Amino acid sequence: MKNLKNSLNSNLESLLGKLKEIAHLNGIQSLLHWDQETKMPKEAIGSRTEQLGTIASTIHRLQSGPEFENVLKKCVDLRTGDCVLKNASELETRLLREIHKDWVKSSCLPESFVREYQETISISQNIWAEAREKNDFKLFLPYLEKVVNLSNQKIEFYQNSSAFNSQKELTGHPYNFLLDEYESSMTVNELDPLFSKLEIGLKEILQKIQSKNTTPKKMGIKSLHKTKPFFDEKGQWDFGIRVLEDMGYDFEKGYQEKSSHPFTINFHPNDVRITTRFKENDLFEGLSSSVHEGGHALYEQGLLEEWFGTPFCESTSLGIHESQSRFWENIVGKSRAFWSVYYPILKDIFPEQLKYTDCESFYNDINLVNPGEIRVEADEVTYNFHILIRYNIEKKLIEKSLAPKDLPEYWNNAYSEFIGVTPSSDANGVLQDVHWSSGGIGYFPTYTLGNIYASQFYEAMSNELNVEECIRRNQLGKIKNWLNENIHQYGRRYSATELVSNITNSSISIDPFINYLDKKYLR
Amino acid sequence: MKNLKNSLNSNLESLLGKLKEIAHLNGIQSLLHWDQETKMPKEAIGSRTEQLGTIASTIHRLQSGPEFENVLKKCVDLRTGDCVLKNASELETRLLREIHKDWVKSSCLPESFVREYQETISISQNIWAEAREKNDFKLFLPYLEKVVNLSNQKIEFYQNSSAFNSQKELTGHPYNFLLDEYESSMTVNELDPLFSKLEIGLKEILQKIQSKNTTPKKMGIKSLHKTKPFFDEKGQWDFGIRVLEDMGYDFEKGYQEKSSHPFTINFHPNDVRITTRFKENDLFEGLSSSVHEGGHALYEQGLLEEWFGTPFCESTSLGIHESQSRFWENIVGKSRAFWSVYYPILKDIFPEQLKYTDCESFYNDINLVNPGEIRVEADEVTYNFHILIRYNIEKKLIEKSLAPKDLPEYWNNAYSEFIGVTPSSDANGVLQDVHWSSGGIGYFPTYTLGNIYASQFYEAMSNELNVEECIRRNQLGKIKNWLNENIHQYGRRYSATELVSNITNSSISIDPFINYLDKKYLR
Repeated sequence: MKNLKNSLNSNLESLLGKLKEIAHLNGIQSLLHWDQETKMPKEAIGSRTEQLGTIASTIHRLQSGPEFENVLKKCVDLRTGDCVLKNASELETRLLREIHKDWVKSSCLPESFVREYQETISISQNIWAEAREKNDFKLFLPYLEKVVNLSNQKIEFYQNSSAFNSQKELTGHPYNFLLDEYESSMTVNELDPLFSKLEIGLKEILQKIQSKNTTPKKMGIKSLHKTKPFFDEKGQWDFGIRVLEDMGYDFEKGYQEKSSHPFTINFHPNDVRITTRFKENDLFEGLSSSVHEGGHALYEQGLLEEWFGTPFCESTSLGIHESQSRFWENIVGKSRAFWSVYYPILKDIFPEQLKYTDCESFYNDINLVNPGEIRVEADEVTYNFHILIRYNIEKKLIEKSLAPKDLPEYWNNAYSEFIGVTPSSDANGVLQDVHWSSGGIGYFPTYTLGNIYASQFYEAMSNELNVEECIRRNQLGKIKNWLNENIHQYGRRYSATELVSNITNSSISIDPFINYLDKKYLR
Repeated sequence: MKNLKNSLNSNLESLLGKLKEIAHLNGIQSLLHWDQETKMPKEAIGSRTEQLGTIASTIHRLQSGPEFENVLKKCVDLRTGDCVLKNASELETRLLREIHKDWVKSSCLPESFVREYQETISISQNIWAEAREKNDFKLFLPYLEKVVNLSNQKIEFYQNSSAFNSQKELTGHPYNFLLDEYESSMTVNELDPLFSKLEIGLKEILQKIQSKNTTPKKMGIKSLHKTKPFFDEKGQWDFGIRVLEDMGYDFEKGYQEKSSHPFTINFHPNDVRITTRFKENDLFEGLSSSVHEGGHALYEQGLLEEWFGTPFCESTSLGIHESQSRFWENIVGKSRAFWSVYYPILKDIFPEQLKYTDCESFYNDINLVNPGEIRVEADEVTYNFHILIRYNIEKKLIEKSLAPKDLPEYWNNAYSEFIGVTPSSDANGVLQDVHWSSGGIGYFPTYTLGNIYASQFYEAMSNELNVEECIRRNQLGKIKNWLNENIHQYGRRYSATELVSNITNSSISIDPFINYLDKKYLR
């Protein structure tokens, strides 16, 4: 992307100055989360919650205060978001539209609400972790109720804002307003048919896999898990770092830490951190976490620093974000080509443990299609069923046709019907994911969108690159460069839909994903 | 301290609400520093600097903005700091005086200055670390010049503020204004005679030690350092944690990390963290760092949470802070009683390495009086000579009778004359300490004040407790409790001078320190 900032209008320049300050405060807020999840001592949760509330309201005051409004209105029509700068370029007009959109969303919400929301999710996440550990849904229930309630309040603020409504086509299902937080402009009307079609396609594939008995036999590494020796953490750590380096994750602009739930967090394109976790009896847990988060991190490190503070230095949607992580985790990280390079390296690290297995059995083992209760452990085919269940539940929670207290029963029934597995406990059922405790209602669908986008991008990339050969020759950097050039550098300059269209000359489509699975598992 | 907050005036209550918000932002600023020193990736220094600048100006706006002033003036006369609340208690009056003092200092400084200062010291610290590593004073020089320059600007802002001057008796030496940042109300007029007397006393003791040849023979652990086996980090780490636990450092409200320069940092009494560093050939480096920082941390953890946000939940001066760290590091941690408990434990961890030594030689070794070039490695007797040199230099820098560019030469001459050692390099000379790069001109004298206060407190404590016996019986908790009760809980309720007077019925005096050294080294 060409740097057009040299020619910036002075009003726009003041606006960008304000935005940069806000972006730094957002980076600081993220650092508080990072610290809370990685290192914070237990008893600090109370003060951390207050710190988060304080920073959230400080940010909110800046974003929606009169000073910001004064600067903004010199650049755009506050009601419509139309650019009012003379001789504005197409790039500036786009930029201002995104800035205006953020302002509209922020100024709908009262500061007291923002603080309460932030403080609630900080405590709620802590309680959720405890509830999951104790397998005690009732402990978490009041906090879940609060989060659902606050989400509904947020929707009402949005619905009641004339500025917001004049901008958006989100009327219809109230859940649209939450979806929009993560996947801009996505609606239930668009998702419902897409997901229905996907469900049919996936069920067909699953049935074929199961009926043709083409399921790879359990003969790889998983069968070793019941016996010692285990895979020590140090060896797993070193292996993960090696793969991250090969992917092009820049350790001078980030680092990896351990946490109970892997995540990526960014404070600036020059400071993008990831976490992973290890199981001594499951080699793939740590590695796939590192590769998944590494994919997210490459996106954030690939944003252009010169636009820091503006929407052009932000990811365009979580669906696109997930397309990056799942591309690396699945399409690259679970391919034969990948393991033709890395299996020998792994065997050097764990010679005793891998004595009785080989690359092909290892490959088959990590690609075993096997419906189970845990989302993050699911294979590529059944993974999306976990998402469809959650998407359905979220809509019902927001419609108020399902009460939080009835969730465990509803969840377990849905799992039996949809996946054919009844969760062994609430900890492994409704309590398995952090998202709802952290306010992330509307987030889950982006995982499936990520799978869909990733396959569309993969198809387009394959027209320009021999992807398999890049992997086989350990030239992962070429893949990274393609993603940098076609996706990362643009930030929010293009919406998810535009990005898909620019890259694939098509709208969003499940076909490439179904084709990918068909080729991988049935041919 | 009795909790008198129940009966608080409503104006005071609003004021405390504002202060709490500012205190949380200060905690957040400290977290940014903590992260920078422990984990931040290298390339993030630019964005971190901007984050620090942003948070510093955010804090400054709140502290000295019109909203705060409006709330404050309902509680105090803005010019004099006198309480204007009806029926205010003595406690409230004291509290308001301290709050007013902070406000006066903050409102003297323009926001642009605060940001520039913060950003300068963030970069400067980074450059200093590089300069020390490369033994390249010239690399650091322009930043040192900036820091000195900014310190002088700060003094001018203070001098030109009528509000500040009506409060303070700091006229006289301009360095007084910097001293006051760390040791409230301390002046050159008070320090000069105190330090001269100390110099005489210490030189006498040193001479006696050297002439009477009572210097313990080098036969302990230090003589082993030249030969393998080394002391592995894991063993040292575990030992340090054990001692910290015994001291009463609460790991649920803090934790220990590694960094290149040990420090303590607090975000709230429930989140007080320390760092340490290790040398594989020097067992005492890691341990004494842990114990020293642990002493600081006990003070911060001992402040009363109910006063969080107010001066009563802040340490009263750095001299008092150092009295805590140096009490634990030296008076406790280098005593025979201490090692009678911990030497056997240490020997269990390092049986091979300690095979040919015993407790008494170990004790003698760590208490060897031996003038050297490095401050943090100095013994209890010669340590203060390092401080006196720095104190003298700082005054000259601020008086402008010594230019930063001439520092290395001045430093080396001072060391030869005063300590009898010419530094082997600038890295081990003028570049050895982080303080000046981080803006801390005025900080060094508090180390020596800490030694003086610590001995005064030790004398008073000994009237109530058999300290040696507490240590010998591994009842360090009793010592901690005494410090909690007599010092920590009060925060800034009492100034350093008041605290010394309350506890010892005396003013500040070097006699207990000289007596302590005399008893330890000459009897």
